[in-house]
Parts: sequence; C-alpha cells; structure tokens
Amino acid sequence: MEFKLIAEGLRAVESILRTTVDSDIKALHDASHHIISSGGKRVRPQVALLTYLAAGGDDIQTAVPMAAALEMVHTATLVHDDINDHSNTRRGKVTVHVKWGRTFALLTGDYLFTKVYELMAPYGTPYNGIMSSACIRLVEGETLQATVAKAGTMDAETYKTIISRKTASLFEAGAEMGALLANADDAVVQALISYAHNLGLTFQIVDDILDIVGDPEKMGKEVGLDLAQTRGVMAAEGIDGAAPITSTETEDVQEMIAQLRDSGAVEIARMQAVEVANRARTALDLVAESPAKEALLTLVDMVMDRDK
Amino acid sequence: MEFKLIAEGLRAVESILRTTVDSDIKALHDASHHIISSGGKRVRPQVALLTYLAAGGDDIQTAVPMAAALEMVHTATLVHDDINDHSNTRRGKVTVHVKWGRTFALLTGDYLFTKVYELMAPYGTPYNGIMSSACIRLVEGETLQATVAKAGTMDAETYKTIISRKTASLFEAGAEMGALLANADDAVVQALISYAHNLGLTFQIVDDILDIVGDPEKMGKEVGLDLAQTRGVMAAEGIDGAAPITSTETEDVQEMIAQLRDSGAVEIARMQAVEVANRARTALDLVAESPAKEALLTLVDMVMDRDK
Repeated sequence: MEFKLIAEGLRAVESILRTTVDSDIKALHDASHHIISSGGKRVRPQVALLTYLAAGGDDIQTAVPMAAALEMVHTATLVHDDINDHSNTRRGKVTVHVKWGRTFALLTGDYLFTKVYELMAPYGTPYNGIMSSACIRLVEGETLQATVAKAGTMDAETYKTIISRKTASLFEAGAEMGALLANADDAVVQALISYAHNLGLTFQIVDDILDIVGDPEKMGKEVGLDLAQTRGVMAAEGIDGAAPITSTETEDVQEMIAQLRDSGAVEIARMQAVEVANRARTALDLVAESPAKEALLTLVDMVMDRDK
Repeated sequence: MEFKLIAEGLRAVESILRTTVDSDIKALHDASHHIISSGGKRVRPQVALLTYLAAGGDDIQTAVPMAAALEMVHTATLVHDDINDHSNTRRGKVTVHVKWGRTFALLTGDYLFTKVYELMAPYGTPYNGIMSSACIRLVEGETLQATVAKAGTMDAETYKTIISRKTASLFEAGAEMGALLANADDAVVQALISYAHNLGLTFQIVDDILDIVGDPEKMGKEVGLDLAQTRGVMAAEGIDGAAPITSTETEDVQEMIAQLRDSGAVEIARMQAVEVANRARTALDLVAESPAKEALLTLVDMVMDRDK
C-alpha cells in the first residue's frame, strides 16, 4: 500500500515538473523540457515524499508540489552551474547553454527558479520560509565553492561548509517540510532533518568521488570538472592537496585525476561517506517503523552504492 | 502626514534592501551591496507604497518588505541582463560581471532572487502567488526579447507583449499587492492595477527612447545597447525597421542610432508614451482623492520627463 503511494507520488512529481514549465515562449519551453526530461535520480523528491510518509502523512498528493519544487531548484542550479563550469554534457544530453547559448541558458535557469516560487506559493508562510532559506544557503554554498576554487584555499572546514550549504540544505528542507505537512512531533521533525542532512552530505561526498573515479558514460557527464571540490575531500582528511588549479587543459586535468586516484584520497573520502551515511541511518532510530522508514534506509544504500 | 509616511516607507525600503543581502560569503555580500547601493529610481517600491496608501492603507510598514522585494527582483534581473548584454556600466558604476567576473555575477543574481523569496515568505499565499506570476512573466518577456533580437523579427504586437511582460508585470504586482494589503474594494484594486500596467508601459517606452537619445553620463550606463528593443518602437508605428542587427561594432551601433534619430521614430514613440501615460492617469479616476493619489499622478510625470 505505502509502496504504491510512493510510486504514485513520484509519478505525480514527474508530471508536475513537466506541466509546470510549459510556456508560450518557445526557448523557455524547449530548454526547460530538455533538462527536465533528461531524467536524474530525483533523490530530493524521494526524501520529501518518504519523510512525509514516515512522519505519518497519508495524503501523498499534498507533498507532491513541494517535492517537485525541490527538484526544480536543483534543476535550475544545474543549468546555471553548467554555464559556469563550461560543461558540455549533463545526464547524457548536451547542456542547455551548449544547445541554446548562454543567454537563453541563463534565462532558463531564472525561469526554473520562478517556477519553484510558483509551486511553493500555495503552501503559505512557514513552508515558503523554509524553502527560501534553503535556496539562500544553496547559492551561498556554491559561491563559497567558486571562491575557494579560484583562490585554491580549500580546507576541511570550508569543504564541510560548502557541502552542507550547497547540497544538504535542500535535503533538509524537504525533510522538514515533509514532516511538518504530516503534523509530526518536533522530535520526529528533528530526527528526519538530521537524517536528511547526513544523507545530503553522503550524496555530495559520493558525487565528488564519482567525479574522480566515475565512468563518464554511465554518469552521462564529464568527470574531473569538480576537482577543486574534490581536493576538499583530501584536505578534509589532512592529505596534502595539489597546487591551486591553474590549468583546465584536458591532459593536465587527467593527470591531476590520476594523482588523486593514487593518493589514497578516494578511499579516505569513501570512509567519510560511510560515516555520515551511518549517522543518517542512526537518526532514524527515533522514527517509528514503517515501509517508508525502510525506504529511507534503502535510499541511504542507493546513494552510497550508485555509480552515476 | 501622508507625505511623511511615504518618505519613511522609502527610507525603510532602502534599509531593508541593504540588510537583507548581508552575507558571510564575501563575494555575495560585496557584489549585492555594490549594485543595491548604486541607487536607481526605486520606481517599483514607490508604486507599491503609494498604491497601498491610495487604497486606504495606514500602516506603511506592512507594505515595506513587499516594496523592497519588487526592487530586489528588478535588481536581480539587472545583474543577469548586464551579463547577457555585455554592459560595462550601470547606474554610473562598473557592472557586477565586469568587477567580479561572470561566475560571481550569475550567482549574485541568483542570490538576489532567493532574497525576493525570503522577503515575500511572511506574506502568505495570495501575495506569493502574485509575486511568482510577475517573476515568471518578467523572465518570459526578457526571453521573448532575446528571441526576436536574435531573429530580427520585431513587430508591433511582439513589442507590446515584451514590455507588458518584462516591465509592466512587476508594476502591476506592486499595485495589486499594495491594494490588497490595504483591503481595498475590488474596483479599486483593478483601477490601481490598470494604473500600474500603463505606468509600466510608459516607463519602458521612455527607457527605450532614452537608449537612443539619452546622455550616457546622466544615465550612468551606455546607450544603444537595446537597439533591437528600440526598433520595436518603430515597428509598433509601422516605420520600416533596419535590417536585423548583425554587428555590435561601436561605429555601426552609432550609425544605427543616428538613423533612428533621423527617422522620426523617437517622436512617434514619444506620442505612444503620452498615450499610455494618459491611460495611467485616467485609471485613477476610480480612486478617491488623497495625497497618495496626487503622488501617483506626479509619478507619471516623473516617469515621462526623466532624463535617466
């Protein structure tokens, strides 16, 4: 029964994501559908829907627009990130700025942000406050990342700040809103936020590892583009990082990747991921048993074991 | 008394605009303060505060964050527009992307958008719905403008669609929210929306005229960058437009500006502005006399007669 609900919810999220970005302005319509229909793991909507159910919610449709809004924020940042990172492929497709040019990509990202706002408006004040805070922290985290990437000054604490803000913030917001929509007790709300925080950290560390060791074909995007980020994983464990990245020549990047692979950094980062993944699991101790709770635990495994 | 309220409200808007963008992320903090503290006419906050008062509101502070949010949307779009238009100066200062680079400018624009969301969250559902619709229409208008600028296919109807969406939408949202916050009757709400719609059109037509005949020093920005837009003013009056703009060389742009000045297009556009300005004034017939209504009428004159 509950599994059926989850599948139903995720299908509804897909449907809303698509219909919400329909526009009579062709470039916005086409570019938005291009990026949204290219798939993605939909981890953030899963967190939102599953925490809602695990917190006792029983009308999944009430959580669906919010779950879609989280994915919409993520999608907007992907379009803008790909401009800034000069990425050519994303989810196995050509990036928006490569296909439509930078001007339209920038506007498409803005458009997707306005659609977040539209999806969230019906939820009212506390929810809009939670979502806006998460969006602010996300942009702050990305800007901090760009700052240290430029300066070559990544260290352990900064890395943690970056991944907390740029990635964990949206996961947390999904769990908090999911739990609040289900009228959960404060203890359960906090437990689910803690779960989501640690799942978000796990997700990003694994992402940074895949940027070094991943198979570009499976991942559907180039690897090695987040090297500055990845060097943070090393710094976080006191491994002496490479010099600031001053070259983006393919051969140089490939060599840096090889150095990182050989340095043991990947194994240490993997241990870090295991630690925060365990914290995510432990946080659920305070949540009553349910198929949704089981699915939240399974989601931790999926995030850990993914190869894309 | 009411004039004191307006001045108080505008000071409060300035204060909120600044404190809202404070951040521990230096690039966001500095770039946001750079663009916000560079001034600007604050026309949108004036519309919001004055319509609130004209509709009978008497606690100006309730309208202040919303008025600031409108200016924040506008500011966010300026930062992104300047990236897309390769503009070097804005309000007499160097543009954000020139000073901080494109990556940080893109992120600063995103940050300012998230701050709109933060400022609006406390207002609840109907207001967030109005603001999100306005933001969507704004991005659609800008994208349509970029589309026709690229294709060289501007015509009268498209020009009207563009300026309605990219400019009038925010003016309308300010008036609608101002009137609703003051608990105005529906007839007054509609009258103030109509006023704001026509004021917004006036504002943009005058802006496009200043892009041709304006003094760059007074305007604090380069002129001639919105030529595609301006050719819309011509097209709107059936004047045979120039060929699609295929060159952005300074001499070519200067020559196109000279052609436009000589064609009579400016005078015709001016007549159009007079017409929509009159519609704005007439819309206020349904609104009770008050110092705020007088100020709304004066605002039409200021928008018409400005030289920057």
